[in-house]
Amino acid sequence: MAKTKIIPVIMSGGAGTRLWPASRKAAPKQLLPLVSTQTMIQETAQRLGGEWDSFKFGRPVIVCNTMHTDSISEQLNGLGIKIGTIITEPVPRNTAPCAAIAALAVQAEDPNALMLLAPADHHISDKAAFSRVVANGLPAAVNGYLVTFGITAEAPETGYGYIQKGGNLDDHAFKVVGFKEKPSKETAENYIASGQYFWNAGIFMCKPSTLLAEMKKHCPEILAACEAAYHASTLQDGLLALDEKTFAACPADSIDYAVMERTDKTAVVEANMGWSDIGSWSALWQLAKGEDGNALSGDVHVIDTKNSLVHTDGPFVATIGVENIAVITHKGTVLVAHMDNVQDVKKVVEMLKTRGDADKL
Amino acid sequence: MAKTKIIPVIMSGGAGTRLWPASRKAAPKQLLPLVSTQTMIQETAQRLGGEWDSFKFGRPVIVCNTMHTDSISEQLNGLGIKIGTIITEPVPRNTAPCAAIAALAVQAEDPNALMLLAPADHHISDKAAFSRVVANGLPAAVNGYLVTFGITAEAPETGYGYIQKGGNLDDHAFKVVGFKEKPSKETAENYIASGQYFWNAGIFMCKPSTLLAEMKKHCPEILAACEAAYHASTLQDGLLALDEKTFAACPADSIDYAVMERTDKTAVVEANMGWSDIGSWSALWQLAKGEDGNALSGDVHVIDTKNSLVHTDGPFVATIGVENIAVITHKGTVLVAHMDNVQDVKKVVEMLKTRGDADKL
Repeated sequence: MAKTKIIPVIMSGGAGTRLWPASRKAAPKQLLPLVSTQTMIQETAQRLGGEWDSFKFGRPVIVCNTMHTDSISEQLNGLGIKIGTIITEPVPRNTAPCAAIAALAVQAEDPNALMLLAPADHHISDKAAFSRVVANGLPAAVNGYLVTFGITAEAPETGYGYIQKGGNLDDHAFKVVGFKEKPSKETAENYIASGQYFWNAGIFMCKPSTLLAEMKKHCPEILAACEAAYHASTLQDGLLALDEKTFAACPADSIDYAVMERTDKTAVVEANMGWSDIGSWSALWQLAKGEDGNALSGDVHVIDTKNSLVHTDGPFVATIGVENIAVITHKGTVLVAHMDNVQDVKKVVEMLKTRGDADKL
Repeated sequence: MAKTKIIPVIMSGGAGTRLWPASRKAAPKQLLPLVSTQTMIQETAQRLGGEWDSFKFGRPVIVCNTMHTDSISEQLNGLGIKIGTIITEPVPRNTAPCAAIAALAVQAEDPNALMLLAPADHHISDKAAFSRVVANGLPAAVNGYLVTFGITAEAPETGYGYIQKGGNLDDHAFKVVGFKEKPSKETAENYIASGQYFWNAGIFMCKPSTLLAEMKKHCPEILAACEAAYHASTLQDGLLALDEKTFAACPADSIDYAVMERTDKTAVVEANMGWSDIGSWSALWQLAKGEDGNALSGDVHVIDTKNSLVHTDGPFVATIGVENIAVITHKGTVLVAHMDNVQDVKKVVEMLKTRGDADKL
């Protein structure tokens, strides 16, 4: 049996403001080495390369902000990863237009290939499990489903969307009954107890033709705008710089709202693979903590310090007698936050925007 | 009645390591603007200038480390304060030799003047009270006593030495029964309850001849070494650079151990004047705290932060959800300490010494 070709589409449009002050406009979360010595997009691109029994990955399509093109090229070339196409978005329009443009590009390159859309800034610790999950999703994707990878829900998290599974489609894939918004604590607990819900990681796989057909049904105005932008743009030396005027005219929406929640063509395969979206400093701390529950990086000296994340990009940092604290120094800024309050970095970012302090954003 | 002339002797030999990372070898605590926009030595020199009903201050004698001469001259000249003599110590020898050398210098300048020794790095908020206290001590000093200023003890502090008062010498001065080392909590509580104890701030006033006579009795080897060093040194343009070889041969000891605890010529006047030695970041926080119990200086933004000290010399610092924390950034280093553990900065300083990290000390 011939191996199915999967062209990865790495979505690098996120701002990662929840990881301020390390994540900045010029070098957001996905361009930073947060979990390992590799950046998040380097980890993602490596995960989405190589071949297995039933499939092989093609060269990745990268969708990113124009200003990050050079950094991403350098980071991936530095690992010897050959990029298929870099698609640059002159303005952010959320994930639905990103997916549509990518589907057009993948279809143009190889109409028989599947596409696998994945955010550039997620961490997956079990790479073998990831490959198995991809293989598990192949039949449903080939059979015309939009296959989502449903993360095994380990706790009643209120910060994620959930996917409810229905009946079996094949050995591994289930029909999707519905997508659920970020739930209340009580609702999340009921989800977990039922055993029918996965976390929605925003990773999915399909034939480009399936996605384009479903978009034509459920969000034709987005598809039309993307087709116009795609055709108004020129692919040169592997770079597709989207035409600003036509792309800016496209409505912004997420792929979940615009397509996944409306179509009956969604399937889900369970993905138990050590996934984390590293959605906060506390999530990074959970991944990285070691002795005394501390996660330390850079020139750090801790005394009587427990369950804390201390990260410095240069300045010497000493901590004494603190617990459950995140201390981050980055490019001349310092964040000190209780681990339970790290989500409020967004308030700091808002304040800096208000005072026009662009060099700290 | 002629006004008594008092020549202030400002002792600037302290390292101030308890205020690391702001206090460094090149610019220790006394050279920093910690409580106000003025540095501690600027505040001290201003407090020790001017004239009142019964006394007037002469030009101050400064005793300091050789490497701080230029900074101190600039800081005091910048306020229009004329320095009498700067005495530089090529090596530190604690306060007894410092006092002996100063006594010799004051006696040479004006044998009829009193001398008032004070550390350069203490804060006194009630300047009018300070002047009254000085006036209260004049009669005993003129009558041949070593007059200490006993700080009204506000709490059973275990970090200070105590002075026990005896019978009255005059309207304001008491004989000293004894000096007590840093006590246990229980002992300190008994001291407070008795009403007979003051905190020892290391500030005192006397005739230089009194001090020299008592040193001859109680620590003749220190006095002899200091006389040798004094006479081996040359006063030029207001600068007395102590001869290194002879001064280094002097035993190191504190004025308290070498003289005050041995002589029966000590008197104490009560000093209720808003004194603080700013002996830790928590002491500075106590002085400076305002809204929500926070003391903030520099480019700082706090969210859900209480009872904390946040001080930055440049980098933007944001704190979220923390309480009872000191955050200090200074010259490319960051300290984050629980307010109850700030004394342990000395452990960080020791670690930096051990690793030979001179640029952070």
